[in-house]
Order: sequence, then C-alpha cells, then structure tokens
Amino acid sequence: MVIEYIAVGTELILGDISNTNSAFLGEQFSKIGLNCYYHINVGDNRVRIVESVALAAQRADIILLSGGIGPTADDLTIEAISDYTGLEMIKNEDGTQSIKGAILLNNEVGTSPGQIVEVDDKKIILLPGQPAELKSMFLNHVVDYLDKLTDSTIITRTVKLVGITKSELEERIAVLLTEYSNPSIAICTKIGEIHIHVTAKASDEKECERLIKPIIKELKTLVGEYIFTTEDDITLEQAVVDLLKANNLTVTTIESCTGGMVCSRLINVPGVSEVIRTGYITYSDKAKHRHLGVKRSTLSKYTAVSAQVCEEMAQALALLSKADVICSVTGMAGPDGGTEEIPVGTVFIGCNVKGKIKVNEYHFKGDRQAVREAATTEAINLMRLCILKYVSETTFGMKEK
Amino acid sequence: MVIEYIAVGTELILGDISNTNSAFLGEQFSKIGLNCYYHINVGDNRVRIVESVALAAQRADIILLSGGIGPTADDLTIEAISDYTGLEMIKNEDGTQSIKGAILLNNEVGTSPGQIVEVDDKKIILLPGQPAELKSMFLNHVVDYLDKLTDSTIITRTVKLVGITKSELEERIAVLLTEYSNPSIAICTKIGEIHIHVTAKASDEKECERLIKPIIKELKTLVGEYIFTTEDDITLEQAVVDLLKANNLTVTTIESCTGGMVCSRLINVPGVSEVIRTGYITYSDKAKHRHLGVKRSTLSKYTAVSAQVCEEMAQALALLSKADVICSVTGMAGPDGGTEEIPVGTVFIGCNVKGKIKVNEYHFKGDRQAVREAATTEAINLMRLCILKYVSETTFGMKEK
Repeated sequence: MVIEYIAVGTELILGDISNTNSAFLGEQFSKIGLNCYYHINVGDNRVRIVESVALAAQRADIILLSGGIGPTADDLTIEAISDYTGLEMIKNEDGTQSIKGAILLNNEVGTSPGQIVEVDDKKIILLPGQPAELKSMFLNHVVDYLDKLTDSTIITRTVKLVGITKSELEERIAVLLTEYSNPSIAICTKIGEIHIHVTAKASDEKECERLIKPIIKELKTLVGEYIFTTEDDITLEQAVVDLLKANNLTVTTIESCTGGMVCSRLINVPGVSEVIRTGYITYSDKAKHRHLGVKRSTLSKYTAVSAQVCEEMAQALALLSKADVICSVTGMAGPDGGTEEIPVGTVFIGCNVKGKIKVNEYHFKGDRQAVREAATTEAINLMRLCILKYVSETTFGMKEK
Repeated sequence: MVIEYIAVGTELILGDISNTNSAFLGEQFSKIGLNCYYHINVGDNRVRIVESVALAAQRADIILLSGGIGPTADDLTIEAISDYTGLEMIKNEDGTQSIKGAILLNNEVGTSPGQIVEVDDKKIILLPGQPAELKSMFLNHVVDYLDKLTDSTIITRTVKLVGITKSELEERIAVLLTEYSNPSIAICTKIGEIHIHVTAKASDEKECERLIKPIIKELKTLVGEYIFTTEDDITLEQAVVDLLKANNLTVTTIESCTGGMVCSRLINVPGVSEVIRTGYITYSDKAKHRHLGVKRSTLSKYTAVSAQVCEEMAQALALLSKADVICSVTGMAGPDGGTEEIPVGTVFIGCNVKGKIKVNEYHFKGDRQAVREAATTEAINLMRLCILKYVSETTFGMKEK
C-alpha cells in the first residue's frame, strides 16, 4: 500500500521552522511497511490544500495530512477536506470541528482531535502539526489503524549502532542484506549513529518475533561491538545512564571544546540524578591548571589539545570529585586556531573508570558546531565502551595491566 | 515571480535525515521577494523526479532542485533534467556531469558543481543536497542570479528579538504591518526568538537602504527592548559574547537542570576564550551544598528549585570564581518530580553582574528537552539584559540601590 504525506503550514514554506514531522513519519511508514514516494509541503491555502489532496489521491491509497486542524482562522485543512470529499463539517461536543462520519483520534497532548476520513477506497488521516501532538497521536492511534489495513501483522525492531560508518556496516552485514526479504533490513543513518530496522510481516505478532529473533542474533554476531541497544526508545545517553545505574557507578565530566554538551546530554535522561552530581567546564589553559591541577609543563610542552592534557584532566578530576567514571574532552573546534600538527577538528577524548584511563584521538569534519556534536557522541560512546570493559573484567575477576 | 522547491533524496522520504535545506531556502526565497507555494520531497527515482519537475513547471517560473547531482549511481537529478528538457548530458573537464548549455556554479565546499538550465521561459536550478554545500552555493551564486531576474534590487535586513511572543509583537507593531508594502515586513518565529525581515525593492542598493532605515528606526522605538541585533549573522549568544568583550567582562555559569547547555551555547561562539574560562554543573542538592556552598537550610526550606537557591548559586560562584558575570539556573525539567507548588517546567534563572543579582521565575511548556532549551535561551537573554543595565548605569555614573 502507498501512503503520501502532506504537511500543511505557511510557516514551513517560509522556513520559520524545520519540518521534523517529515523525518519522524518517513521512518514510521517504512517500519509499518508502507511505501511512500512523496512528502509535500503546502501553505495555509484552502485551494492549494485541495489540489494537493486530489493529486495525492491519484498516487496513493492513504493520505496523511499534518497541521491546520486547530480553531484559528488560518487552520484550513478540515475545510479543504470537506471541499475535496463533499462531506459536511460538524461541530463536536467539545467545540472542536470535524468531518461528518470521521473516526476521531484523541489528542493526549493538545486540544484538537485527529481524524480519519474513509472515502471511496481512500483513507485520509488528519493530524496536528505540533510535533509532540503528532508523534503521540500517530503512535497511540494511527499505527494500530494502519496495521489493521494490511491483512498481516508488521513488527519492526530497531538495532542502534555507533562507531561504524554506513559503508563499513553494509560490507559487514552484506550477507544479511541480500539474503532476506522478510524480515526486511533497512539501514538509517542518524547524526553519529546508525539504526537498523528489522521489519517482519506475518500472520501474528508471535510469528513476526520468531522471524526477527535470528536476524537480531546474527547482527550481534556480525557487528555486536557497535550495537548499543536493541530497544526502540533507548538513546545512547540512556544506555550509558542505565549501565552506570546497573553497576552502581557515578560519573562526572570535564569538558573543554564541547563546553558542557556531554554533561548536558547525560542530564537529558530523566532520573539521572542517581549517577551524576556535577560537571565541569575548563575552557582556558589557566582554568585547566588552576581549577583542575593540570601541570603547566604538560600544557606548554604538548598544548591543551593533546592526549597528555586529556589524560591529566581525567586523572585530576578523579582526585577532586568522588565519581567512579570521569569523561574528559579537549579539542580544536575551530574555525581558527588550527595548526599543521593540530588541525581544526582534532579532539582528544578520555575516560577514566576507577583509575583505568583510555584516551582516544579523533579527527572530525565540519564547522565548529558539527565538530562539537560529533565529539559529544563519541565521548558518550567511549564512556559506554570503557564501562563495559571495566564491568566484564571485574565480573570475571580479571585485571589488565 | 514564483519558485518551487524540489528536494531529491530517498533518505529524506525514509526519514533518515531532516531536510534543513527546506527551512533555509524558504527564508531565502521570502527575503528575495519570490513567492513559493510548494516544497516537494521526492526519492531518488528518475521517473518521479521528471514528473515532479513537469508539475512544478506548470505552477512556477523557477524550479530549484537539491540533491542527486553527485557521481554515484543513485544520483539521478541530472539524468531526470535531461529527460525533461531533452537537453544532452555532457562530461566536464573535471569529470563531473552537466546539462549542455547550463550555467555552472562553483562548489566552494564540495565537489559537484551546481547548474542553472534556462529552457523556454523556465529556469531550473540544480544544487547539491548537502546543507553546507547548498547554503554556500545559494548565497554565493544563486542569490545574484535570482536578483538579476527581477528588474529591481531587493535587500533584506533582519531584526532579531527575544522575550516577546508573536501575537504581542504583531500588536505592538500593527501600525507598521498595515502601513507598509515596500519595504515589506515579515515575522518569522524561531525557537525562543522572533526574526523580523524588512525587505525593500528598489532600483538600486542605496535606494533600498534608504527605504529600510526608517523602518528599523521605528522598530527600535516600538520594541527596542526586545531587539538583540539588527545584523543577519549575529546569534543571541554572539550578541552576549560581543557585549562581554566590549565591556571587558568575563562570565561563568552554574547550571542545574540545563546541565551545561547555557555554557555550551556560549562556547559555540568562536573566540569566546577571551571572556569565558570555566563553567560548572551542580545537578544534585549535595553538589550545590558541597561544591558551591549553598546553605543546607536554604535547600531544605525552599527546595533546590527556588529563587533563594538560584540567588545563592549566583552569589557563591562569584566568590569561588573571579568572573564578573555569573549566570545560575535551577529548575524542574520533568517528566517526574513536579509538585503543586513547583510544577514541571518551573525554572529560576539568576544573573549576578559584579554583585548585582537579578533572579527571574519562568514556567516553560513541553517535554524535558523543550523546557531545558527554553530555559537556556532565557538565561542567555537575561545575561544580555543584566549586562546592558550594568553598562548603562556605570556609564552614566548612576547606581541603583
């Protein structure tokens, strides 16, 4: 079955906001196994919305529109659907408007309900434009509806990886990519991460899971060292926080070029207060020396952007704080300051788990913000790897030198 | 003149990445004074690209396509334009491909050149999909080309505001919005900010500037207290860093719920090392007491999310650090932990400029990340306002009690 997505809103056309719904829905459609060929952005114009729907109806079985379903004068999507279908608009008990005969979808996050209008052999789905409302409504109501349209059950499991490129991954799992069509295996590249969607189609949920299980197992065998979760709603920072909690470890961060981004991402995990109490930013050389005790001689001999300073930062903070895990970051984010030895994009990331320190050197591309974001993701991943190593060694009673 | 934008790329349809080019181009089109009614996303499919261009040609004078102009097998945009126009594809000296007779646009950031194909009365513009390449090529080559298509010169100045809602702004500047058509005045809402684009159309640049000047002046009179810059490329954090530099002030931050986001945004400004040396995150109550010296009694009497603790944080860090300006943030970002007195979304933000402390209470909506982002923007703006107040008082030799 084919679905087409129409985002309604002049603010999208004028570039006031980026349409993040487009990426969310695109991923969801592919998970459900729907084919989607076009995403359309159209302004708050009744005639043009009708024209877009008419065109979509020629190309797709299901038309999903977002935006323009609220009560204000420039909300014209319901009017346009009434124009297109010839179905009357009615006022609901709570004062909201809908198309006569539509299935109403409860809005748990906002006020305007969503709607599904079934007309001839087409399904028209109307959702709010506000991303949190759309997401909640789609996941709570629309997924089930779309699943029922297909005879079969479709289930997707997401395997999330970090530290590997798309082309490397494709090479490593080539056998899986060519061999299987059900479950299908789709690779999605995210900023700093790669997600593999394993989608099975079968008569029931149990059969889907039976089909998916060996693929996940195979993926773990082929690229297990890069997988940080096989759960859909676990982020990289959540995976690290879970790991810290499970092993009764606390963490703190000492950041230079990332300037608080690593700590900030960890703190975006709800309930993180169990494992993180403080974070530090030492941006200048002076601060690295005075507040942290990084040696003046190390700074002058190796410069602040060096493995040596990164290591001293991770050592020093272990003494100052009582945290079990310390993550240190120092780098050259640019745009100025790069040299032949230390070009812009060079970042050193260290992780100290109870005295065992690992320092890696990275070279990131892009502007200042891109370098800092890439460094943040790698820092969180390095923590994950170092904690895993520590846990496996202590569990088996082994000690590396 | 009407322009239509077609983004080519299966990765956009599948939701692998958000199409940030859409927002950038939308804003640019409105600045140049072009009307745009549709943004289309289509996958890497030669037939569907041709169909999209054919449809756009019925609705627009100029068709701008992004993506699919590279050398790999799934780059099909040039092929599709050759199909649509009947014009031959040729190989350039550097090995890249283009449409015969096309104007080539140099790619300063990447490898594949852009192209402009003029056929009948339509202009077809092909740009790379990679955002940095597209942006640079559009600003360096396409803006001039589009400007020349119109007889007149079009110039846009952007006035950026923070701390006012769109509806309040519309009310305050209603007289300007109704009175003027040249320059036109467009309001764009950004996350935490509002941008006003003042666009003048005239025979030459000088005449444009003459038309724009009184509008900017009028905006400063009507809503001057919310304006943080009238420069296109100045961000809110850049405005604060510039203000700090101009007044020889240093800054540090002490964050709880924002967990480093305020410091991180300041550090995204190149050359910030002159004014910022350190930043601190005290997430737990214990850390606020132990590392910072916030009184236990204050924490237990008022809780960590209170004006009193926020003020003590800003005072304590002034003693510990030698910075002139201290920004402190403590709040309840949720999703759990909210109470009737302190609901989720409550954030206190303090600013201490050489001993003069201001603390504000805010109530933000949305999920944990949204609350933290909104708090970060308000914190940076509060710094700006407090520094401005300090500067104006010391400059005029006045002292408030």
